[in-house]
Amino acid sequence: MRVKQPIFEIVAIGNELLIGKTLDTNSHWLAIQISSLGAVLRRVTTVRDRREEIGGAIGNALSRHPDFLLTLGGLGPTHDDITLSSMSKFLKRRLVLNHEAFEFLRRRYLERFGPGVELTPPRLKMARFPAGATPLPNPVGTAPSPCLVVRGTTMIALPGVPKEMRAIFKGSVVPMIERLGGQHRFYEHSLLLRGIPESSLSPKIDEVMKKHPQVFIKSHPRGIEKDGSARIELHFRIGGASPEKSKGELRHTVALMKSKLRGKALVRDARRS
Amino acid sequence: MRVKQPIFEIVAIGNELLIGKTLDTNSHWLAIQISSLGAVLRRVTTVRDRREEIGGAIGNALSRHPDFLLTLGGLGPTHDDITLSSMSKFLKRRLVLNHEAFEFLRRRYLERFGPGVELTPPRLKMARFPAGATPLPNPVGTAPSPCLVVRGTTMIALPGVPKEMRAIFKGSVVPMIERLGGQHRFYEHSLLLRGIPESSLSPKIDEVMKKHPQVFIKSHPRGIEKDGSARIELHFRIGGASPEKSKGELRHTVALMKSKLRGKALVRDARRS
Repeated sequence: MRVKQPIFEIVAIGNELLIGKTLDTNSHWLAIQISSLGAVLRRVTTVRDRREEIGGAIGNALSRHPDFLLTLGGLGPTHDDITLSSMSKFLKRRLVLNHEAFEFLRRRYLERFGPGVELTPPRLKMARFPAGATPLPNPVGTAPSPCLVVRGTTMIALPGVPKEMRAIFKGSVVPMIERLGGQHRFYEHSLLLRGIPESSLSPKIDEVMKKHPQVFIKSHPRGIEKDGSARIELHFRIGGASPEKSKGELRHTVALMKSKLRGKALVRDARRS
Repeated sequence: MRVKQPIFEIVAIGNELLIGKTLDTNSHWLAIQISSLGAVLRRVTTVRDRREEIGGAIGNALSRHPDFLLTLGGLGPTHDDITLSSMSKFLKRRLVLNHEAFEFLRRRYLERFGPGVELTPPRLKMARFPAGATPLPNPVGTAPSPCLVVRGTTMIALPGVPKEMRAIFKGSVVPMIERLGGQHRFYEHSLLLRGIPESSLSPKIDEVMKKHPQVFIKSHPRGIEKDGSARIELHFRIGGASPEKSKGELRHTVALMKSKLRGKALVRDARRS
């Protein structure tokens, strides 16, 4: 049985990412989650806080028809939080006050600042969604995340604050993935090699992958020992609907590789991370 | 005097980035370098090891006419190192043995493995460049980086091994940037605020930016204090050809913001990172 693997793309938004002020650990965290749920993260595009660049990146992503398009950041109350207005402009859907989002926001501000709190325009902005969007609850922050379906792609605008992004992803996106492709899981193994250069390893990888085409094998150089020999991590990965088959296939592939390396390199299994 | 700021894009290549096995610190390091040299990193696109996806990302980037397009990764000897063949296919330029690159490679293998070493096909692959490319020396690794100019964009394929990537960037790319826009520098300052919500800060940022439009101000939520008040970092940034003018403008902008926040938030200057 072939289970559909949902395809994701991410558009990460923010000058801070492109001037190197912030390391994008959000996309990395999402990559781990998406992948471990058996879905595929196909591409990440990082752009500045500019309407035409955000719109362009969203448009390019939609033209590739992913199942999910996540945007990251630019949802707050300040002048440079322009993700929703960029989306609205690009999709030609007006920004309208979403009543459910408004109620969520109103409750949150009341809880935090008491009954005197005013819902100023910058605050109300966070409840103005592109027409047709529905709010996903934000368990830890002030504003919910808009979710809308465009030409078969589910678009979700996630906040850039890591705690809020993670809570919304776990609370709302994970269940969507599980409904689509929950049977599909990945299995991985790594070998740590010493004393064989990557260029000599390359033909062996080709041989093993020819015998086990379902297993993806990739070598990662990990520096040089004091004696000049290379350290390499050899990473094996298989995904499939049957855990038993996948695990068996992975075990046989690793064993075949070990036998091919006997006498040619120092080999040990990496501890599971 | 207006100094041209060179525009960069990066295409980062590798399944390991999109399954979350590797955090892309290379792009982050490059973002810091590019930015501190007064150039602009406009976009980072991260794609898998697939020829059509790499070619597509390169094509999209070239259509936006950056001054520099850096690719990251996929230059090694193994089957999944397909950056140069993807580039070659997309640009319709044949892969040809570059004699200068070949000599570099030959010397390196000789130094590392002695006179018996064989230049096998996987090794020779690293000297096969798209026609018209020239090699940039790799001070710490085996293979040089191909550099070619396509429709006004200087394309440079950098290796994914951080030490090699950094050495080639510093040795060859930094001098290119300095020739183009060496006078342009950025100046930054951060204030750390407590006790004011981002939504109340937003109108003040607008007021200050209206008076000092050259300074870009961005607020970053940094969590919540135990008493429920928000912690916010307020980041100021200005770039320009005259260091004195930029620094003066930055100082006045920060002072104006501090005066507007007096009595409304706890404010302190962040230490320089």
